[in-house]
Amino acid sequence: MNKYEIALIPGDGIGKEVVPAAVKVLEAAAEIDGGFSWSFTEFPWSCEYYLKHGVMMPEDGLETLKNFQHIFLGAVGMPSLVPDHVSLWGLLIKIRRSFEQAVNIRPAKLLRGLESPLRDPKPFDLIVVRENSEGEYSEIGGSIHKGMDEVVIQNNVFTRKGTERAIRYGFELAKSRRKHVTSATKSNGIVYSMPFWDRVFNEVKTDYPDIETTSTHIDALAAYFVMKPHLFDVIVSSNLFGDILTDLGGAIMGSIGIAPAANINVEGKYPSMFEPVHGSAPDIAGKGIANPIGQIWTGKMLLDHLGHQEVGNLILEAIEDTLEAGIKTPDLKGNATTEEVTSAIIANMKKRV
Amino acid sequence: MNKYEIALIPGDGIGKEVVPAAVKVLEAAAEIDGGFSWSFTEFPWSCEYYLKHGVMMPEDGLETLKNFQHIFLGAVGMPSLVPDHVSLWGLLIKIRRSFEQAVNIRPAKLLRGLESPLRDPKPFDLIVVRENSEGEYSEIGGSIHKGMDEVVIQNNVFTRKGTERAIRYGFELAKSRRKHVTSATKSNGIVYSMPFWDRVFNEVKTDYPDIETTSTHIDALAAYFVMKPHLFDVIVSSNLFGDILTDLGGAIMGSIGIAPAANINVEGKYPSMFEPVHGSAPDIAGKGIANPIGQIWTGKMLLDHLGHQEVGNLILEAIEDTLEAGIKTPDLKGNATTEEVTSAIIANMKKRV
Ligand SMILES: CC(C)[C@H](C(=O)O)[C@@H](O)C(=O)O
Ligand SMILES: CC(C)[C@H](C(=O)O)[C@@H](O)C(=O)O
Repeated sequence: MNKYEIALIPGDGIGKEVVPAAVKVLEAAAEIDGGFSWSFTEFPWSCEYYLKHGVMMPEDGLETLKNFQHIFLGAVGMPSLVPDHVSLWGLLIKIRRSFEQAVNIRPAKLLRGLESPLRDPKPFDLIVVRENSEGEYSEIGGSIHKGMDEVVIQNNVFTRKGTERAIRYGFELAKSRRKHVTSATKSNGIVYSMPFWDRVFNEVKTDYPDIETTSTHIDALAAYFVMKPHLFDVIVSSNLFGDILTDLGGAIMGSIGIAPAANINVEGKYPSMFEPVHGSAPDIAGKGIANPIGQIWTGKMLLDHLGHQEVGNLILEAIEDTLEAGIKTPDLKGNATTEEVTSAIIANMKKRV
Repeated sequence: MNKYEIALIPGDGIGKEVVPAAVKVLEAAAEIDGGFSWSFTEFPWSCEYYLKHGVMMPEDGLETLKNFQHIFLGAVGMPSLVPDHVSLWGLLIKIRRSFEQAVNIRPAKLLRGLESPLRDPKPFDLIVVRENSEGEYSEIGGSIHKGMDEVVIQNNVFTRKGTERAIRYGFELAKSRRKHVTSATKSNGIVYSMPFWDRVFNEVKTDYPDIETTSTHIDALAAYFVMKPHLFDVIVSSNLFGDILTDLGGAIMGSIGIAPAANINVEGKYPSMFEPVHGSAPDIAGKGIANPIGQIWTGKMLLDHLGHQEVGNLILEAIEDTLEAGIKTPDLKGNATTEEVTSAIIANMKKRV
């Protein structure tokens, strides 16, 4: 029987509430499936940890994580205590980069039982493949003439390898879906990186004659997410564009609190990291009312990745059953607690088997 | 009596249909007001012009435009004939930059008679002040190792002057509105330009103790445009973020086809340029069904800028009356022509005086 070694990093704020909730669901999934088990090891790396130790994770943190198959992370950031660029670049982005988690895949889907803020959406089911290791997020840059004449340069760095890897991942994914890939571009305004992105996209697509493609500028694409999200299947995007599109994806579903994500090491050389789209939400942390669905659905993505799609799909069905029953946290206009939503999801999983 | 000298650049695609439509409305506005008149001079600069002359505008084009008070532009771009970076950087962006049109102001408002794609929006009335001269849109960058090892660098360039000018413009605008400014940032992921943006924002805001402020990351902000657009009054943003937010603003109103914009030369040294958010829409060009409202509302912004708010507001009321009467182009699920919508707006203006 497979035993999966998973590192848990609840992180900050509501991460500390939704990770334990999702772990309960993952345990229930293992029990139902019967063919595998989990071994979870928790790490307290977070802003709190930083305040005590002056670092977001110990020096051998990455070495430690390497011994695990995958990482299951909640949320990082507590901007009132630790500047974001310290907390995020010291933990979240550090892991993404060090373990070459080169794509970040993030689905958005109209769920049963959840009212979308869109008036009358056709069912949509899309997935954003976000380049996750370079692009607009770069530590190359600086500033000159501090003060009134300051000039700041921020470099965006796009490599052939990084760009092609993300785009190709999108095409491979589309094969087993509705066979359509949309490229998020902005080559009409951004004249080096985006024409390069287009060029690689156009080259890669010739390897996939059965897949239909479109290229759409990010401004129009954001608008289409609101007007016609059903048009999309797989969307490939740069780091920043994917960041924006996937929060939008959460919004059109009904809440950022339910959007899941997976940071994938494509080559399987290092652990992948599963973390929801939402952040640490300091304003509601500690109240027991955080929506656990984003983290639980992220657990489904971990199961899918490990090859357990069947029980993974069961989780998503049980999430929808729970929403349909009106058992929802306040962000979805319900009055259930994190605990109640989690228990209901587990009960609904059991009902379905 | 004031006579305003305006350069018309219909440009490409539907620009050639909606500019004449909006000019009719502007003529009607002058007639109703009685206190000013127009002198319009049309220039054929466009992709068609490029195909004949090898340039988007003649060498002395900018010199010519300098003699006008303002520019009223339709849309530029015909990507099947001329690459976007040639057409846009040779005309639209060239004018924005050469005339230091350093902010681009773009309202979004829930209109009477127009169904928003949002389920049940509270009335919203926001305005994005987009930095329009630098930032992510820069011609500084390049590539090395063409082929499989290619690395492309795109520089984002933020200056103190450009950043402060846009942010300050937003604060000044907020004074005569609901006294709230939101800053679009992404300093958690983009570590040079965005922390600088935040720093300037935080400095400028100390000059406006009566104005409330918020800083929100662009990903969350895009989601809020869908979830809670009524929260916003004035939003200040970088060039790229403003580009994305304003298409989203069009989407939540009900169509990109109605969103107006003004490229402002803040110092009044050069002409400003008034052009709607939408593009040339080659797919529907020439059919007489383009929605003229974006261009007509853009005309209202020109009137506001010239100090004729009263007749400017009349135009917006007449647009809403027309929408309420169901006289809409196909993009708004109506079956009226460009011509019919335009005539109805003019008739409704006259009815109201
Ligand atoms: C056409 C393009 C370069 C332009 C921009 O991004 O500025 C357009 O999208 C706009 O918003 O005016
Ligand atoms: C916290 C931030 C750096 C991060 C990102 O932009 O990647 C987050 O928004 C996300 O989408 O995972």
